[in-house]
Amino acid sequence: MEKTKTAVRIAGHEYTIVSTDAPEHIQRVAAYVDRRMSDLAIASRMAPNVVSVLTAMNLADDLLKAQDENVRLRQQLLMNTQRAG
Amino acid sequence: MEKTKTAVRIAGHEYTIVSTDAPEHIQRVAAYVDRRMSDLAIASRMAPNVVSVLTAMNLADDLLKAQDENVRLRQQLLMNTQRAG
Repeated sequence: MEKTKTAVRIAGHEYTIVSTDAPEHIQRVAAYVDRRMSDLAIASRMAPNVVSVLTAMNLADDLLKAQDENVRLRQQLLMNTQRAG
Repeated sequence: MEKTKTAVRIAGHEYTIVSTDAPEHIQRVAAYVDRRMSDLAIASRMAPNVVSVLTAMNLADDLLKAQDENVRLRQQLLMNTQRAG
C-alpha cells in the first residue's frame, strides 16, 4: 500500500505523518490528540512535554480498556454462536 | 472512590499519577507507554518531545480503531440476539 505524507497540527506544532492510512483518518486522529492534550493542559497547567506524556498515558489507559472490552465481546459472540449451533 | 498516588517511570523520567485505578493498572499502562515510546525512539532518532507527541498519535490511532471495532462487535451481538429472539 502506498504511503502518503500528511501535515497535522497538534498543540500548536506542525508534524508530518507518513502513513498508509487515508489523510482524512490521520487528520481525525490528530484532531483527537490535540483535543485530549488541550483538555489536560487547561485542567493542569503542566509543562508541554509533561502534557504530551500524560496524554499518552490517558490514551494508553483507554486503549488497554477498549482492547479488554473487545476480548470480552468476542468471547460473548463465540459463546452465543456455540449456544446457537 | 479513593484516589491513590503512583510513581511511574516513562522514557527515563518519573511522573506521579493520581488516579482511582489500582496502582498495578497504572504500572501496566506506564510500562506500555514506555515500550511504545522506546520502540518509536529507537526506530526514528527524533527529539524526546516529538516522540511523546507521535506516540500519543499512534495510541490514539489504535484507540479509535479499537472503539470502531467495539461498536461493530456490539452491533453484531445485538443482531444475533434479535435473530435468536
